[in-house]
This record gives sequence, C-alpha cells and structure tokens, in this order.
Amino acid sequence: MALSDLIHGSSLPWLSGEGELTDVVLASRIRLARNFKNIPFPNRADLNQLATTRLMLTRILSDISRELGVSFDVADMEKLTKLQQRVLVEKQFISKKFPKSPQHRVAYISSNQEMSILVNEEDHLRIQCMAPGLSLARPFALASKFDDLVEAKLDLAFDEKMGYLTSCPTNLGTGLRASVILHLPGLVFTKNIQNIVNISPQLGLAIRPLYGDTKESFGNLFQISNQLTLGYSEEELMANLAAATKEIVSHERQARKALALYMKDRLEDEVCRSYGTLRYARLLSERESLELLSKVRLGRDLELLSGFRPEDFGRLIIRIGQGYLQSLAENENLSKNEIDRLRARKVQEILLEASREAGEHIEET
Amino acid sequence: MALSDLIHGSSLPWLSGEGELTDVVLASRIRLARNFKNIPFPNRADLNQLATTRLMLTRILSDISRELGVSFDVADMEKLTKLQQRVLVEKQFISKKFPKSPQHRVAYISSNQEMSILVNEEDHLRIQCMAPGLSLARPFALASKFDDLVEAKLDLAFDEKMGYLTSCPTNLGTGLRASVILHLPGLVFTKNIQNIVNISPQLGLAIRPLYGDTKESFGNLFQISNQLTLGYSEEELMANLAAATKEIVSHERQARKALALYMKDRLEDEVCRSYGTLRYARLLSERESLELLSKVRLGRDLELLSGFRPEDFGRLIIRIGQGYLQSLAENENLSKNEIDRLRARKVQEILLEASREAGEHIEET
Repeated sequence: MALSDLIHGSSLPWLSGEGELTDVVLASRIRLARNFKNIPFPNRADLNQLATTRLMLTRILSDISRELGVSFDVADMEKLTKLQQRVLVEKQFISKKFPKSPQHRVAYISSNQEMSILVNEEDHLRIQCMAPGLSLARPFALASKFDDLVEAKLDLAFDEKMGYLTSCPTNLGTGLRASVILHLPGLVFTKNIQNIVNISPQLGLAIRPLYGDTKESFGNLFQISNQLTLGYSEEELMANLAAATKEIVSHERQARKALALYMKDRLEDEVCRSYGTLRYARLLSERESLELLSKVRLGRDLELLSGFRPEDFGRLIIRIGQGYLQSLAENENLSKNEIDRLRARKVQEILLEASREAGEHIEET
Repeated sequence: MALSDLIHGSSLPWLSGEGELTDVVLASRIRLARNFKNIPFPNRADLNQLATTRLMLTRILSDISRELGVSFDVADMEKLTKLQQRVLVEKQFISKKFPKSPQHRVAYISSNQEMSILVNEEDHLRIQCMAPGLSLARPFALASKFDDLVEAKLDLAFDEKMGYLTSCPTNLGTGLRASVILHLPGLVFTKNIQNIVNISPQLGLAIRPLYGDTKESFGNLFQISNQLTLGYSEEELMANLAAATKEIVSHERQARKALALYMKDRLEDEVCRSYGTLRYARLLSERESLELLSKVRLGRDLELLSGFRPEDFGRLIIRIGQGYLQSLAENENLSKNEIDRLRARKVQEILLEASREAGEHIEET
C-alpha cells in the first residue's frame, strides 16, 4: 500500500466493527516501548545518535519484514507535509508529538495497517499493533514477534531486575501499554461514567476520553489502558485490562437496556433525528458529528434504525477528521466553513451508500 | 363529497400552492356577514328564532346550489363529534367559537371545499370563500353571487345609510372581511416583521400570526385583513388589501434575497437540517413541525432543496393539526406522545412520497 493510500483511505481494519464485544469495544491496541543499548534516549540524543538509531532499524527491517511476512511503508516525518502528518495522527499511526521535531523520526506502517513502528519517538522503538473489538492477545503476539526479531539482531536496553528500560519511568519493566477504545453512550447518559473513571486507578487502569478532555468530552468514546507496567507480567496486565473491559461492557449493556426500556420513544426519536441531521446537514463540525454519530451507532446497536453498517462508524470517524478532510481537498488553508461543508458531504456519501444498500429500511416505521 | 372525506382528506384546494405570488401568499379569503331582517342577531335570538333562521336558509339552499352549480355538504354542529368539529376549525371551514353552542349552528361546505356558509355564527349568515395565492376577486365574486341569490329570495337587514347591519359594529357596512395568509420567514428572520405590524393600522389593516399569539408566534404565517368595513366600497377595501399585500411580498422577497446572499451557507444548512429532522424524527410537536416546515418551504422557494412539492406545505399544515390526527386515529384521548408520534409518521408519508417523486434529488449536493 502506497503512503497516499494510507493517507486518503477511510477504512482501517481495526475500525472495521468486527471482533469481540463490538457493540461496546471499538478496538484494541498494544504498544511496546523498546530502546537500544548504549544510545541515549531520543530526548537526550543528538542528531547523529538519532540517525544511528534510525539506521540500526532500517538495516534489519527488510529481514524482519520478510520473516513476519508483512510489508511496511515508510512515513518519514521530515518528508511528509503537515497535512499528511496530521492524517497519520488522526488515524493513530503516530502520536501527536511525533512529528513536532521531525529529524530522523520515521514511522513504518504495515501495509495491512495493523502495525506501526515509530523510530525515535519517546523511546527508540515503539511497536504498535491494533485490532478491532476486544482483542489483546493477537496484537500482543504480533508486537512480541516483531520485538523478538529485533532482539535477535540488536542489543536492547534491558535490566535483569527492572526489565526493559524506557525513557519515561511509567513504561519501565514490560514497556507494555495495552488499551481498548470503548463506546459508552449508555454510561454517559445514565451518568454512571464517573464511577468508572473514579474506580479505574484502583484497578491499575487509566481511562480518558478519546475526544475532548476529562472536563468536557464528546462522542462518548473512551480509551482505557494499563497504568502499571512494572511488577506484573504482560499476560497479567492484559488479563486485568480485559477483565475490567468486560465488566464495563456489561455495565454499558445494562445502561442501554434500561434506556431502551424506560425511554424508548425519546431515545428512538433522538437517534433518528441524529441520523436525519447527519444525513442532511450542510455544515457539520467535528464535535457535532461525533455526538450525532454516537447516537446513531447506539441506535443501530439497539436496533432502533437500520441503514447503518457495522463498519460505517469507524469509517465516519476517520472521515470527519480535520486533517483527513484538508488532505482530501489538498488544502491546508480551508476555512472552518469549507471544512464543515466538506465533512457533511463526506459523511453523507457513506450514509447514502449504506441506506441504498439497506433499501432505505430506516424510513419505514 | 361526503363529510367524512372533508374531515379525513389532507388536501385543500386553497392550500394547493397554486395561484399568484404563491412564494409568499398562501391563500386568500373573503367573508361576507349578512343577517335576516326582523330576526334578532344570533347572540340575542332564542332557540326558536335560531331554528327559524336555519330553516329559512335550508329552504332556499337547494335552489341556490342549483343556480350556483355547486353542491354543499351539511355539517350540523349538534351532530358532529368534538373531533370532527375540531378538524373543521383546523381546516378553517368554521370558526373556533362556532361549535361552542351547537344548537342550530350549521355549516354548509361546498364539495369543492372553496366555500363554507355558516348559519347562526355571530351573524345569521357568514358566506366564506377561499382561494389559493393572492386572489380576492374570484372568491369575492363567488361570495357575492351567493349573497345575491339569498337576497333575491329573502329580506336582509340593510340600512340605506349604513349598509348591511351586523351583530358586531366592526362588520357594519359591507360586512366584508377580506384576508390573505402570508408566509414571511424572511421578514421574521431579519426582524422587519414588527415594522409591518406597526404600520398596518394606519393602512386600515390588521395583521395577526396564524399560530401562537402576537407575543410569541411560530411558523412565520400571518393573516392580514381589512379592519374597516364602513365608508369604502368592497372594491376599495380589496384593492387596499391587495396593494399592501404586494408591498409586503416585495419586502419579503428582498429579505429572502438578502438572506440567500449574505448567509447562504448557514441558511442552506438550516433548511436541510430542518428537512432531515422532519423526515426522520419520531416525535414531532405541532409547534416544532410548523417551524421546520416554514424553513423547508423557504428553502424550496430559494431553490436550496428539491424533493418538496408546492402542494406539500398546505397538505402538511393540515396533517400536523391535533384534531386531524386525533380524528385519523378515531381517538380523542391520544396522549401527547401518541399524537407527536402519529404526526411524525403522517409528515413522513408526504415527504417520502415527494422525495421518491423527485428521485431523491435533495441528497445530491
């Protein structure tokens, strides 16, 4: 897959809506932080040292690629436009800060879009693997395989007592950050989300909204990940996250059931209005789009409307991103109004396609 | 046309969207107030006298019907259900107060629905004729013809100096009330409507919102009628109303042009959102429906959307009426929720039909 396809495509395999518990769990993600021995961490390294790190990985990557049976595209932050960088951030292939100092910052993105390897982010290597639904074992196996292949060829910074050494102590030990993206409209609406947020630290987990901040989030999407990396095995950390996720899923399902039971008419009305607005508005902000999308997705999960396919949610989340839209128009200087207009059009392309496929069932009551 | 068709139909010829200046003038209406000589006005008459008045008209009606070439249905307020009465009010065949004391109160409604004759309303006879668009001459000619035929057979209360005598002095003289229903979203939005309201009395005209009250109206529909009935000929009164109407139409068109010019994007967005909500909401109140309909109608007039036919506005105004919906469900005790749900469904029937006819052009931007 060419880089331009990575940028312009609006479907990501880990947002396909497939997998386990997908009525609530959108996607899972594994990240391993690794560093090479005897080279300063990127924040302490000079340009020569950063170049060295990069070269070390580049030299072994084609072998790893062959051994894994996965091909990679190179996204060199120095060569990308701001717009291309922004799209990669929106698609979560790279972190927001990664392109800030672009020298020798390179991402290798697998052509199946399940894997992205960041070189010279906070650590020398960040191995990231994504999967749809609740699925930690598979991306962890893939990330570990990559890690093993690196470790077979190069010396990593590892301490017998501490484990993997990382730039930030919060990653020390396993270097593992496992996370899941959850859609929690039921818990938000019934105001139970705060309980989940409050209890997370005691479970060794961190929860944060995917859009907005903790004070004011929108879209009802949350990311939960392990806070601890040290003192537990990778399997224990993932099992803990998976167990908490299943618990939250069951609470979310209960909340949705209660909503559907006690305020079905109002809920159905709101869901269908949201669909109508998404389908006909001519100007849509990112925030409003996410809020409407969340309701439409909930409505679909509760079978209050059809004409919306499992993969549409993920595709629309990509399509409403400002960077995605700017890059589509190949214009960094689009006005807010122009972006909102283009966003509405791109959303409507998908909804129209879905509704035609469904034979417009949504309109028959 | 049977009475049940009058009740259940949702198209009225004078709301067909045809006629002159129909981008602003929905309909025109002529009403003549007449009384029989030597019988007290209805508010002073006893039941025997009311019965007499009724009988006097009934006796000559079949002759008049033949002479006019128009057949009439009888709507006897004593025999109608509350729901049927309510629908006739919503369709403006009868006044709100007419069925309040139903004895000997009868309306004769022409089968083409252009004419309704009220017996024993405020006056012995109220001859009402409606037409789509700005059209005063034709309904006036029809009402006058009816009046002439009555006058040829019966003595009317008429004073050489004063003209026709009426129960309320505001109708004295010509007994004429000519009115037009205007859709003025441009003047409301640009806040110029108050100027029109303020200047109306100086022009001998009264303006009032069709829905809501003067403090808070909705739907942007207004009725303008002559305040004076005495001292001018019918032709002068109608010419005055027509001239003022044309003036208001030109102001309204200017206001719309300005809106379309200076805030096209926002206006188009609002119009299309309104359409989306009307098309997909599951619960619609009368007030919200009118507000959304007004925007959709404006959007259609400004060619911001298709999939909405000239006759749809009028048909939808009938369909959102509470009485109409209750009578459709044959249930006076529908809850607000049930009415709102039925209203949404009846609105959507029309919109879906229109959009299918238009081949869903609205969605292509």
